[in-house]
Amino acid sequence: MKTPHSVKLAGLPEKVSIYEVGARDGLQNEDQILSVEAKAEFVRRLVACGLRAVELTSFVPAKWVPQLADAEELLHLLGPLPGRHPVLVPNERGLERAMDCGVREIAVFASATESFAQRNLNRSLEESLKMFVPVVERAREQGQAVRGYVSMCFGDPWEGDVATQQVVAVASELIAMGCGEVSLGDTIGVATPGQVAELLEKLGERGIGPERLAVHFHDTYGQALANTMVALQHGVTTVDSSAGGLGGCPYAGSATGNLATEDLVWQLHGLGIETGVDLEALCRTSLWMANLLGRPSPSRTLTALAPSLER
Amino acid sequence: MKTPHSVKLAGLPEKVSIYEVGARDGLQNEDQILSVEAKAEFVRRLVACGLRAVELTSFVPAKWVPQLADAEELLHLLGPLPGRHPVLVPNERGLERAMDCGVREIAVFASATESFAQRNLNRSLEESLKMFVPVVERAREQGQAVRGYVSMCFGDPWEGDVATQQVVAVASELIAMGCGEVSLGDTIGVATPGQVAELLEKLGERGIGPERLAVHFHDTYGQALANTMVALQHGVTTVDSSAGGLGGCPYAGSATGNLATEDLVWQLHGLGIETGVDLEALCRTSLWMANLLGRPSPSRTLTALAPSLER
Repeated sequence: MKTPHSVKLAGLPEKVSIYEVGARDGLQNEDQILSVEAKAEFVRRLVACGLRAVELTSFVPAKWVPQLADAEELLHLLGPLPGRHPVLVPNERGLERAMDCGVREIAVFASATESFAQRNLNRSLEESLKMFVPVVERAREQGQAVRGYVSMCFGDPWEGDVATQQVVAVASELIAMGCGEVSLGDTIGVATPGQVAELLEKLGERGIGPERLAVHFHDTYGQALANTMVALQHGVTTVDSSAGGLGGCPYAGSATGNLATEDLVWQLHGLGIETGVDLEALCRTSLWMANLLGRPSPSRTLTALAPSLER
Repeated sequence: MKTPHSVKLAGLPEKVSIYEVGARDGLQNEDQILSVEAKAEFVRRLVACGLRAVELTSFVPAKWVPQLADAEELLHLLGPLPGRHPVLVPNERGLERAMDCGVREIAVFASATESFAQRNLNRSLEESLKMFVPVVERAREQGQAVRGYVSMCFGDPWEGDVATQQVVAVASELIAMGCGEVSLGDTIGVATPGQVAELLEKLGERGIGPERLAVHFHDTYGQALANTMVALQHGVTTVDSSAGGLGGCPYAGSATGNLATEDLVWQLHGLGIETGVDLEALCRTSLWMANLLGRPSPSRTLTALAPSLER
């Protein structure tokens, strides 16, 4: 299989940690509901590809996200795995379910905008942040790590532009309540590199440096890797992506959602940045998943490499 | 229609000239052959979108590229247009045909690698460059501007990696023979930003600065816009792209070829960089062309915006 020619670019990190969201953020946005065995196989394959941060599932009520209604069963099937394996937790009830499964890291999902908080979390932005306080506190008391997502950081389908100060305020609150890492999400994929640089710089001024941050770009407008480049130039070393680009965005009116892990790996390996990921194994995993879901992957790299793998 | 939120990034140019290749590089790689009237309409629409550099066609023998066998007729139909409208010319015979049509700018197409020269031009790299010398000389004598393409700058399907020095040597020869602009092509779309920076820096050391250069990225591996970012950071202000991403690459084994002009415009306008292009008009033009060709465009931005345009 073809691999990228590797030439370093000054000022970029030596290593990047890829935070794989396909099993949670990807599958929760697919129409089709996979069997718990298929999900477990997917996660095991992702781990076998060398991915060391794989978000597993979400402990949300089944009526909200029927795709992930089998969270307990999945964790039971999986057993211990090497690396980080956070689960999304929407509230204290979700945390309890996660703790019963022995989860060691959780993630909470906040919004940078009032509109998305109302629509996605069914409460005001302030109420949603308040709701997370005891969740994060209790998780931390149990020795769990906590990641905080901030969605709609660069644009919102109802509000349009999003003020950088608003994102900084929500990220600061998440850090203050005990999140060790904050993932900045471009949920509708509209961001361009100047916005990314501006946000990272404003967060830095507030004492939130790149070591506390992850970036979560969607490729809806094809901008995800250019935005990633600028985030790397600003010192960010954790990048979220989804194997095969799984998971459209239901709010963006487009099938193209998450940045595909394959496209990210091509870029990072091309830049001589270590990820620990075996690109060929990853491509085979995503082809297997595309076959299960019965639709082609939107990943450019996977599409380019697939013919040489299927031989 | 949604437009990108605009935030500048330090160190980037104020304006970028988009060099539109859809009518030539795009259509010559499509299986379907359009009528000359459809091609003329396409060019007129592109110009009406504000594109001021539109490559029109190629004066190659019809048996090589039957898609563009109507070059004379197209130019006759079009008449005078505002801006730059180069045509590709493979040899002296092609130049004569172009001159008979009153063309004011030509482009010659060289390869950075021996293998591609042999396969695409049917002669050695040295022979192909020698063949261009009298073509460029005669065109310059007639007061024409000349663009030189260098293809396979970052990878070659037969040779694999391509030595930067080889690209620098070919670009230098093109400049020496009188090309005013050299377009650096990632014909198979494998490049990552470190390679782009390295090549631009080596060219600079040889006295070939960004004002003489254009970049021509393919999105086969999803890397085109990240590479564009780095080219902009190195001072390049001319970027090649293809409306709707028209034109796969026959050598890359993938349907995804040229960077889509829509994706580029989203990035540039997002960065507050002037292009003169009306993105909505461009999207409507590419949707019209996709409809003519009977297949969806691979452009991410066009795909995201299309539902709001079709209403």
